[in-house]
Amino acid sequence: MTSTHALRRERLAALLPAHEVDAVLVTRDVNVRYLTGLASSNAAVLVTADGTATLATDSRYTETARRLCSDVEVLQERDVAASLAARSTGRTAVEAHHMSVADYFRLGGDLPRVSGLVESVRRVKDEEEIDLIRTACALTDQAFAEVLPRLRPGITEREVARALETRMIELGADKPAFDSIVASGPNGSIPHHSPTDRPLRGGDLVTMDFGALYGGYHADMTRTVAIGEPAAWQRELYDLVRAAQRAGRHAVRPGALTHEVDAAARDLITAAGHGDCFGHGLGHGVGLEIHEVPFLAPPKPDSDAEHARLEDRVPVTVEPGVYLPGMGGVRIEDTLVTRDDGPELLTRTTKELLVL
Amino acid sequence: MTSTHALRRERLAALLPAHEVDAVLVTRDVNVRYLTGLASSNAAVLVTADGTATLATDSRYTETARRLCSDVEVLQERDVAASLAARSTGRTAVEAHHMSVADYFRLGGDLPRVSGLVESVRRVKDEEEIDLIRTACALTDQAFAEVLPRLRPGITEREVARALETRMIELGADKPAFDSIVASGPNGSIPHHSPTDRPLRGGDLVTMDFGALYGGYHADMTRTVAIGEPAAWQRELYDLVRAAQRAGRHAVRPGALTHEVDAAARDLITAAGHGDCFGHGLGHGVGLEIHEVPFLAPPKPDSDAEHARLEDRVPVTVEPGVYLPGMGGVRIEDTLVTRDDGPELLTRTTKELLVL
Repeated sequence: MTSTHALRRERLAALLPAHEVDAVLVTRDVNVRYLTGLASSNAAVLVTADGTATLATDSRYTETARRLCSDVEVLQERDVAASLAARSTGRTAVEAHHMSVADYFRLGGDLPRVSGLVESVRRVKDEEEIDLIRTACALTDQAFAEVLPRLRPGITEREVARALETRMIELGADKPAFDSIVASGPNGSIPHHSPTDRPLRGGDLVTMDFGALYGGYHADMTRTVAIGEPAAWQRELYDLVRAAQRAGRHAVRPGALTHEVDAAARDLITAAGHGDCFGHGLGHGVGLEIHEVPFLAPPKPDSDAEHARLEDRVPVTVEPGVYLPGMGGVRIEDTLVTRDDGPELLTRTTKELLVL
Repeated sequence: MTSTHALRRERLAALLPAHEVDAVLVTRDVNVRYLTGLASSNAAVLVTADGTATLATDSRYTETARRLCSDVEVLQERDVAASLAARSTGRTAVEAHHMSVADYFRLGGDLPRVSGLVESVRRVKDEEEIDLIRTACALTDQAFAEVLPRLRPGITEREVARALETRMIELGADKPAFDSIVASGPNGSIPHHSPTDRPLRGGDLVTMDFGALYGGYHADMTRTVAIGEPAAWQRELYDLVRAAQRAGRHAVRPGALTHEVDAAARDLITAAGHGDCFGHGLGHGVGLEIHEVPFLAPPKPDSDAEHARLEDRVPVTVEPGVYLPGMGGVRIEDTLVTRDDGPELLTRTTKELLVL
């Protein structure tokens, strides 16, 4: 039986001839993990066009590597990249989007360069990966439901963030998938606001962007709630973002162009006169990284057309937001996965405006 | 009054002439944070030899940047590196140890390269930074003390890790400084073991390596405890590692060569016949990163002599370990900071062998 990891290496190996190389030296830690199962801060794997693989790591990880990766030769080395590069005989490409300039010149400065190759293989997930993301999203939903009753005037942004994070860990998350965002009142106009000691107040909108990490895979969810009865402008803003988020989700399907998914949501916000207040892309892929290909964003002149269409089994977020400086903001985000018969929603928390 | 961050930029600017460059394009996130106070996943700062600085970040961070960095020009850009490189007039170096090969060639492939320059400035901490590390270490000690009563047969490695991590967050940590290690019984022979569902058992040695992050600064502590009365070999191993750790700590002082500090501890372990079972360096610097310069390790032929001596106010870990495959291991680690009148111990938990 071929292991999941061996199948992934075969998908990578099949791409090498088109890049006119005989092997790729994979040094990026999440890519090494994807191809071998080994999570290590110092490991590299050499994958050749015929699908054979050699894994190098240092003495801290070799025992684990030999146990996890029984179908791969494991070398114990300190300088994992140099030792694998020295063993490779054919044209060996490096991961140019990850390898540092210093390492590249240390290896001679003349190896062929590929960018995003393993990432492009990672874009379409196997069901084993989707199961892990589904669990991560369920933990995220559950933590939100349990922390919700604590969202009252007086609790601070930081306390809300800690409550969400500790609850996710207690429920079984490895850890939070990223630094949680809790932005209340006027802080809501800062899309990536770090939680402060500001207490929630009646009349605030509060945006919470957080998620669980489970088995190395990420969940990503944002909800905006109202503390006390919202003002007319707040409800109007919420309804707009909610409608845009729905339109974005409905545009997520195999075959869709990523910039068209973005436009499906963005056009509604632009038509409402808030186009300038939605300064980020609609969403991003989710997997071993919290942000990975594909990116759902307006078209860029230098975009890679090959990556521009969604396939089946691609987990993405849909997260439009409107940010009004000095006033506040609304963002609503789900993690979902493309399916041939319509997207599967992985974060299941209600998107009704919760008035607390 | 000159701000802390401006003083740091001046220290960096003073190094540029020796590298024959007029400016450095700082793209590494922790380095940008160190020089400006802005924590962002997409920001860069250009520092010129005369000490002026320009910060570029995208729309998600500009509001925060303008508030935090009032003495620096802030540009709103998507491609932060390219926009700053285009503005720079003189010879502008890139951070070669961080910038990717792909980004380097995108910027033309011919910019001068420096490595570890900001990191060398970061090595000696200001008292503001040491205060943050001291707090991070106090939170670490406190969490350990509170979780200690739960270390009994039956609790799993994973449950211990979660208990330490949630307690640190509840006590005020931003988050865990790194993925906690809890290695029990034979798993103790794996220095970087990930916690599993293995329950602690009577007769186990249990190694816990964990720490708090506070204000962006890291704590790092390891303790090994015994579940029930230890066997003679376990106590002997513990006493050896403890003696080596003490010798290492006593060697930490301004002026000491980093490989001599390593040797002070390693020689005891080698003399006891376990030299082959201590496969990592004695310790490392701690600050905005969990592992940073200086590294306390055996001398390497290609080591940089300039970095090889400790100065005053350098926080480091001292963490010898002995790992016996199939049997288990012991590691004892403190975070301490060099002082002219002897090292200041920042992690204060006892190093007596705790028998639980």
